[in-house]
Amino acid sequence: MIDYMEKAYSLAKKAYKKGEVPIGAVVVKDGKIISTGYNKREKSQNAIDHAEIIAIHRACKRLHSWRLDDCDIYVTLKPCPMCAGAISNARIRCCYYGADNQNDDNDIIEKIMGETKLFNHKTNLVYDKKSYCSEILTLFFKQKR
Amino acid sequence: MIDYMEKAYSLAKKAYKKGEVPIGAVVVKDGKIISTGYNKREKSQNAIDHAEIIAIHRACKRLHSWRLDDCDIYVTLKPCPMCAGAISNARIRCCYYGADNQNDDNDIIEKIMGETKLFNHKTNLVYDKKSYCSEILTLFFKQKR
Repeated sequence: MIDYMEKAYSLAKKAYKKGEVPIGAVVVKDGKIISTGYNKREKSQNAIDHAEIIAIHRACKRLHSWRLDDCDIYVTLKPCPMCAGAISNARIRCCYYGADNQNDDNDIIEKIMGETKLFNHKTNLVYDKKSYCSEILTLFFKQKR
Repeated sequence: MIDYMEKAYSLAKKAYKKGEVPIGAVVVKDGKIISTGYNKREKSQNAIDHAEIIAIHRACKRLHSWRLDDCDIYVTLKPCPMCAGAISNARIRCCYYGADNQNDDNDIIEKIMGETKLFNHKTNLVYDKKSYCSEILTLFFKQKR
């Protein structure tokens, strides 16, 4: 069986090698990976190009639908509000994240994922703690300093 | 002088004619419109394709930078969390919106725009109320029913 978080991590490593903040994401449906993405904001110089956005964009393209029903997303770091909003907008069923975001504030991500009336949809948010997901981020920011 | 909200509204009208939820956005820098966008989620079948995301993507491309310093965005409807996050990620200075979002909850958009520690940046959020921005939405949803 494929370990989806490990696959997301392998994408984060790709980002790392390119000097990007190492974050990776995969979208899974019916036990199959239907799309992948890794952060490429610096290369593309596009504020939108986070791992999750790229993976969702590709999943929509592949399924020819903006509704990613019965899809789950595995991401190495807890999503930012933009990506949490995108995950909810795409009606993704469950979001698994491997590292917590230490800057998180007021459970805003939890609210975006389902507690707010702004969305019709509720995405489950699951902390699937994997030390390798946080270690690569720590290493990246240590080297940047 | 160009009325930027009217320009955003003209983009919302384009979306309307194409059967899309009528929302438009423009990004302005130094008194000039540097990019535009309108919602095209149905046509593209991409959950990401909101007016603001498209306008931000194009502005980054035009300025060759993910940092939209000293840029403002004019959007016909108060942004959703995804777009609010994108606006903040792109470090946009000010977001003017022409219609309020009646589903808004817990000032979540205000939090995403600056009160949360998740972002280093604070975007000012200004309700520039224009009845034409809400009227076109009301008309659209009335016809959809």
